[in-house]
Amino acid sequence: MAEPSKVAASALRAFIEKTFTTVGMSADDAAAMADVFLWANLRGVDSHGVARVPRYVELFASGEANLNAEIRVDRPRPGVAFVSADHAPGPVALSKGMQCAIDIAREQGVGWVQVKETVHAGALGYYTELAANQGMIGLGFLAGMPNMAYPGARGAAVATSPFAVTVPAGDRAPFSLDMATAMIALGKINQYKMKGLQLPPASAVTADGTPTTDPAEAKMPLPLGGIKGAGMSLGFELLTSVLAGVPIVAPFHGEGNKRHRQNAVLIAVDPAAFGDGAAYATAVAETLSAITGLTPLDEVAPVSVPGERGTRTAQARSDGGVPLPKGTWTALGEMAEKLGIELPERI
Amino acid sequence: MAEPSKVAASALRAFIEKTFTTVGMSADDAAAMADVFLWANLRGVDSHGVARVPRYVELFASGEANLNAEIRVDRPRPGVAFVSADHAPGPVALSKGMQCAIDIAREQGVGWVQVKETVHAGALGYYTELAANQGMIGLGFLAGMPNMAYPGARGAAVATSPFAVTVPAGDRAPFSLDMATAMIALGKINQYKMKGLQLPPASAVTADGTPTTDPAEAKMPLPLGGIKGAGMSLGFELLTSVLAGVPIVAPFHGEGNKRHRQNAVLIAVDPAAFGDGAAYATAVAETLSAITGLTPLDEVAPVSVPGERGTRTAQARSDGGVPLPKGTWTALGEMAEKLGIELPERI
Repeated sequence: MAEPSKVAASALRAFIEKTFTTVGMSADDAAAMADVFLWANLRGVDSHGVARVPRYVELFASGEANLNAEIRVDRPRPGVAFVSADHAPGPVALSKGMQCAIDIAREQGVGWVQVKETVHAGALGYYTELAANQGMIGLGFLAGMPNMAYPGARGAAVATSPFAVTVPAGDRAPFSLDMATAMIALGKINQYKMKGLQLPPASAVTADGTPTTDPAEAKMPLPLGGIKGAGMSLGFELLTSVLAGVPIVAPFHGEGNKRHRQNAVLIAVDPAAFGDGAAYATAVAETLSAITGLTPLDEVAPVSVPGERGTRTAQARSDGGVPLPKGTWTALGEMAEKLGIELPERI
Repeated sequence: MAEPSKVAASALRAFIEKTFTTVGMSADDAAAMADVFLWANLRGVDSHGVARVPRYVELFASGEANLNAEIRVDRPRPGVAFVSADHAPGPVALSKGMQCAIDIAREQGVGWVQVKETVHAGALGYYTELAANQGMIGLGFLAGMPNMAYPGARGAAVATSPFAVTVPAGDRAPFSLDMATAMIALGKINQYKMKGLQLPPASAVTADGTPTTDPAEAKMPLPLGGIKGAGMSLGFELLTSVLAGVPIVAPFHGEGNKRHRQNAVLIAVDPAAFGDGAAYATAVAETLSAITGLTPLDEVAPVSVPGERGTRTAQARSDGGVPLPKGTWTALGEMAEKLGIELPERI
């Protein structure tokens, strides 16, 4: 039996949809889940792909995620909306939130949407790409439970909260930056551990804050560039959770709600408000080409721009299937058996 | 004679205003210049303070900055505005731009303002603080001429473009993050050189892209966290210059306009759109207090949040005067002599 297993994108999508309709989601919501996880797998961001599905099934079972959330959308002023997610999973709440931002931007030029009390957003870049697919710039900030060090403090203080921006680029792959505010992703620390490799220096610390390159000892990533990444993360908490009236960081360190939840801001900007939208995408492509056309330091490694590699991988995996490592395949098998559904066929 | 020289804040302000009215600026525009430079000096960001004044005088003389710019403000859709700065200096153009964003946010909840073709913005955090002074969240992105390395490319590829966010915090100092996308500021490399110190590892490279810790050899900073900082910088160019129809990066690497200029996006968000504005500031203060109240790694170094130290320094320097190093004082003296004006009195 060849490892890793490989599954056709369409079969993987059908499997994810089947999983979530089986646990009780509506067909539309299950499709939103499949879109987000498949997107990540296609682009090679496997940490945010189907590997997360079993965890979501548990989250529904435990009530941490709400299967029948009543999502409420308010629009207190013309340029902004407020999506109260009622603990709906990220794929459902944030897809709705970004569509709302896009609709507002078409009218107002910009739309700023607070999404409060969702769980496990998945890859933030998926949502900002929804905007780019409609010719708009998409931006997103996300805040979650503290899991990252903060300069000078003992223990986890802030979250590895990501920032994402996607910009349409005409003939080229969209510019797509989706970055955590940490030096290294938590999932990557685990990958180093499984491969028996040392971590890069100054990327992680032990539980009490001592720097370490031993992935077995590492409990938290360090923030990107010290106070810069930590400050971004703290700033995102103020822009998302605190602005929505549902702080995460303060209760985490004191009294109050310590249950997992995430809050986001999603922003769409319509380039057509400032001129010709298609001309904008062309000018974006020219800028990206100026960078990829630079003389490389290493002749055999051309200069690349954020988003390009993911788009190439997505093309290859759409055509040739999505590889799933043994651990993921086993976990999906166990979940499928419990739910009484079939694993997708391997190719 | 004691070094550094120390000057009362009011005297320094009067001197900056006098300088700019002498070279032909209106009293209002000269006051805008004084506000921005004095703000930086008061907060201890001396690299962006009065030390920059002689350079502005040269920029006006060379025509690079426009003394009598006709700034045009358009509002193509309700949520966005377009400030065509006509090469007005940053303090004039960006102050106007942020006020515009604030006015829009009061109506719409959010205001997004493109500022195109300004020169030398100064400290971006000054403009985002204008929003916080009016109870709003201020955000800013800036793009300029390439002066930073890009992963895998030879030579300067993108700019050290900053990102700033200021959030009102009630009784506490506002949260104020104003960060370049570089590992180290260009000005700091020079300070290491003057002090005869080695640079931190992995912070800068020579002209051809070789990493160096010798500040005399260092020609460019490296981007913060490799592709993360470089991607942010490139993203800011797409959000600012390219969206405004006046790209900087593409012409820099090809044909077209290579003259110094900067473009910005300034965003204001009105917390009152989402609830009670004063309650928001209080909740922000609680979050900041949760961080500063964390157990410090080092007993004698309490945990701090972005903006706090600057606010403390500003209080001390407002009361006790602004120290000016010998080099700055000498340069101001030479400039004052040429212009036929008096240096401020030292205290």
